[in-house]
Amino acid sequence: MNKATSIAPSERTQVRRIAENADYERATLYAIIDDAYLCHVAFADDKGSHCIPTACWREENYLYIHAANPSRLAKILVNGASACVAITHLDGLVLARAAFNHSMNYRSAMIYGVFERVEDEHKAASMAAFMDKLALGRQQQARPGNRAELAGTTVMRIALTEAACKVRSGGPNDDEEDMAFDVWTGVLPFTRQTLAPIAHESNTQAAPDYVRNWYQSK
Amino acid sequence: MNKATSIAPSERTQVRRIAENADYERATLYAIIDDAYLCHVAFADDKGSHCIPTACWREENYLYIHAANPSRLAKILVNGASACVAITHLDGLVLARAAFNHSMNYRSAMIYGVFERVEDEHKAASMAAFMDKLALGRQQQARPGNRAELAGTTVMRIALTEAACKVRSGGPNDDEEDMAFDVWTGVLPFTRQTLAPIAHESNTQAAPDYVRNWYQSK
Repeated sequence: MNKATSIAPSERTQVRRIAENADYERATLYAIIDDAYLCHVAFADDKGSHCIPTACWREENYLYIHAANPSRLAKILVNGASACVAITHLDGLVLARAAFNHSMNYRSAMIYGVFERVEDEHKAASMAAFMDKLALGRQQQARPGNRAELAGTTVMRIALTEAACKVRSGGPNDDEEDMAFDVWTGVLPFTRQTLAPIAHESNTQAAPDYVRNWYQSK
Repeated sequence: MNKATSIAPSERTQVRRIAENADYERATLYAIIDDAYLCHVAFADDKGSHCIPTACWREENYLYIHAANPSRLAKILVNGASACVAITHLDGLVLARAAFNHSMNYRSAMIYGVFERVEDEHKAASMAAFMDKLALGRQQQARPGNRAELAGTTVMRIALTEAACKVRSGGPNDDEEDMAFDVWTGVLPFTRQTLAPIAHESNTQAAPDYVRNWYQSK
């Protein structure tokens, strides 16, 4: 493991199940986050555990999320709650000869830690980075967030210091004794496919680059 | 709300943020689960909160998952841990005239409760139901799970009794005062797209229906 490019596993991020799929490279983690529009955040309160899907983006070595100030997510996470963030891209179904050896191809990331509040002076820049992820260039076209809107939004970030990835790709791993079993074996892949943009009925503007390139680009 | 077809919200499943997107219909919940190959399960132990992606399937009014016996997931969940299961399908980016009104289209489900162990006599049938979801008909072709494989697998289920969905579709909701803002507005949709099946190099069999129909069917 190269200390400059990888993240040392902690007790919580040391992959134990199918450990050969573990990946502690920072580049892998960044790629998985950057390819995701949303993450799932786990935390607990006096009502039990919660698993909340929310939009996410990355700036340097932090994962960012945002929420309305009155939301449970905003109120609990910036108050020191132990959090775990998961991002999972499913890439295919892996059909092996034995039922037991069936699997899935995936790229998954898990981040442990505590969120911190992004202070007011950095909030607008963080939301701009989020917009750049969604639609590069739109930041300069849309009506920017005003004071009240920004004030009503909590932006939070979690450091990518206690994190690990798990990645599976390729075909099935059949056992030697199953090889004579007569059944199709291979992968049924899928991907996130962009579809044709749908202009709103009130739209009057020509499609900018990030709209025109949407359908072809992914 | 029709009591026969919907699920009464609990304190934990009453949607509070953007409550007009709440959906408590059982049919919506079932459709979201049936369209998902994986869920994220949140639970907590003495090391903090965890958010674990895992394959899921549905039988009647239960969501099922499975895990190797020695895994943390299996050990903790069948011992009464408070769990929250989330499934989120992301359908598109919603580009509004104001940065603040940007959104995403999604279909999400959240289930609260405690998992119970599926006892040995029902395990094989549950795993068969899982296989039917992945590839209908393969159950009769693949080498079935043997005694040791089944014995090493924990199958768990959670009742769909404390659950809610949240669904957003359609275009942006612009504010009246932003309508004169000259910027493209609409939806950038995506979908889970199947790709051409990849037979393993060791494969000798013709593609069965669930393989031949994979690329066209979704």
